[in-house]
Amino acid sequence: MSWVETELREQPVALDRFLAAETAHATEIASGLVRADVHYLLIVSRGSSSNVARYLQYLFGTVNRLTVAFATPSLYTVYDAPPELEGAAVIGISQSGASPDVVAVLDEARRQRRPTLAITNDSRSPLAQAADWVLPLHAGEERAVAATKTYLNSIAAVALLSSVAVGDPERVSALRAVPAAVAAQIDQTLATADRLDRYRDVESGSVVARGVNYGTAFEIALKIRELSGAPFEAFSSADLLHGPIAALKPGRPAIVIAPRGRTLTSMRAAVDKVRERGSEVIAISDDADFLADAETALPLVPNVPEWLSPLLTVVPGQVAAVRLATLLGTDIDSPKGLTKITRTR
Amino acid sequence: MSWVETELREQPVALDRFLAAETAHATEIASGLVRADVHYLLIVSRGSSSNVARYLQYLFGTVNRLTVAFATPSLYTVYDAPPELEGAAVIGISQSGASPDVVAVLDEARRQRRPTLAITNDSRSPLAQAADWVLPLHAGEERAVAATKTYLNSIAAVALLSSVAVGDPERVSALRAVPAAVAAQIDQTLATADRLDRYRDVESGSVVARGVNYGTAFEIALKIRELSGAPFEAFSSADLLHGPIAALKPGRPAIVIAPRGRTLTSMRAAVDKVRERGSEVIAISDDADFLADAETALPLVPNVPEWLSPLLTVVPGQVAAVRLATLLGTDIDSPKGLTKITRTR
Repeated sequence: MSWVETELREQPVALDRFLAAETAHATEIASGLVRADVHYLLIVSRGSSSNVARYLQYLFGTVNRLTVAFATPSLYTVYDAPPELEGAAVIGISQSGASPDVVAVLDEARRQRRPTLAITNDSRSPLAQAADWVLPLHAGEERAVAATKTYLNSIAAVALLSSVAVGDPERVSALRAVPAAVAAQIDQTLATADRLDRYRDVESGSVVARGVNYGTAFEIALKIRELSGAPFEAFSSADLLHGPIAALKPGRPAIVIAPRGRTLTSMRAAVDKVRERGSEVIAISDDADFLADAETALPLVPNVPEWLSPLLTVVPGQVAAVRLATLLGTDIDSPKGLTKITRTR
Repeated sequence: MSWVETELREQPVALDRFLAAETAHATEIASGLVRADVHYLLIVSRGSSSNVARYLQYLFGTVNRLTVAFATPSLYTVYDAPPELEGAAVIGISQSGASPDVVAVLDEARRQRRPTLAITNDSRSPLAQAADWVLPLHAGEERAVAATKTYLNSIAAVALLSSVAVGDPERVSALRAVPAAVAAQIDQTLATADRLDRYRDVESGSVVARGVNYGTAFEIALKIRELSGAPFEAFSSADLLHGPIAALKPGRPAIVIAPRGRTLTSMRAAVDKVRERGSEVIAISDDADFLADAETALPLVPNVPEWLSPLLTVVPGQVAAVRLATLLGTDIDSPKGLTKITRTR
């Protein structure tokens, strides 16, 4: 079995290990990080970690009522003109903790005496050393170039921080129950992965979501692209109507992420627009009607609340990426042109 | 001639009209907007205006030293859970000023007594009515669905605000000289537009930039997609190396935006990576060596400083989008599935 498939299956165990190890520690970090003079969060990340940052933006926005900004590292590294960071707490997210541009933003934040946190799978990495606090991911070694368990544990790290920062033990309990649901999701999706086989000749496509799963759409698109080379693109269901929908057409399927909850109505409207353009719909949902209306149904394990759904919704996308890449015959552990640790400046 | 082509040619006149009308007014707006308790800017936008917002992020970051965050309207409209906006000044950018989700963010900001600005082509729009200040774009009526002159004037509005906020008359003078350069750029690129004809069968591609032209990359990709339906995608040269480069291959050209300045070194490195993957390079640059190395050269008019280059660099992209769409035989004034004013919630 490939490393990607092995690590995909390890996700429930890795997730549980992280939550068991870090729940108390996260409480301590959250109280120090979001101190009285913090009015917004500034996140620095690259690749899959930027998709985690999108989840953070929605979750901390709705639950913790904080605006979340994404740092543009070139201000710090290419232009040598970092902004003033008064009011900010700065969080770096990187599985390797090794990318110099991510580290540069935390270095500058500390110089300006702003509170800093590193979320990383390597507690001895340069990023960890640059931060006031480190939240280790406990994902274990990840050998595949395409991140799976470090992505999921990073999502869990964000969910945990948000929950302890708002001081809600019920949210923490709900999170602790998720590893079992992820295990069920992996089993269920793997058992029906042949539903993707009709897309073996797919050249491109899109992934549509909104709100807490907006980042999931980017992560699924990235995973398909990394593993199979097929250019899938992520869109918010709202942005899609402002121009990019012109790229949808027959032969370019749309993966639509639609768990029950606040965004479901918006996703139904998006599906209507997608159909007008002649694209097939691949639905990731726990809503029976939504699934029944789709050409391809990838059902979600039920009874996980919407705010935690990104821990589940990415799984059918990971499985789809592996399946499409395998059908195309690509080497999924060593996709062309990619390396596990990317050091950009 | 199509409306898109007519309006593309009107850009220098529309740009000059905006700058002549609003330079004094912008000074007044900037002093009110960036008041003492403002530590970051929060931008709300959709479509092409979000590409303007990306320029704003780099320009206000490097020149005005302010962090810039992008609002996620669904927090305000779908989740009914807007963040607390202490420390923020809020700017809405929308040519029509009509999208309810953009207006909702400004409404909430005013409710929280934060300073608000609308940058819009319609001073009587709902967005204009929701804001403390309005910076009108003076682009005149825009009939084509694909924005050209409202995009360019919005970029100029951002350049003007940044320059007057930092109180630098030399920067304002440099900006006032740009309409003549844009006119020369349009003439020059139109005269050599047949260089794009070798891409008449292109199915997809990418647009690569960094820093102040990161938003230009998104705008060019959107323009090609809107007009021709070919899915072009924008990447930062840094992000490209963290995964998405797997989608590059022969037959999918990369448009690389590389004006002289701080980002040129980074763009040279990106070109090396693009070539390794077998993609052709279409260069938008004023650097002779960079142009000479490309399969297709789209030269920039010289002597425009890097921070103002987004007013020029988008022009070859607009021309390329029109050319590719014309070769494909699409109706460029009424692309399928799009409307001029998009009202999302």
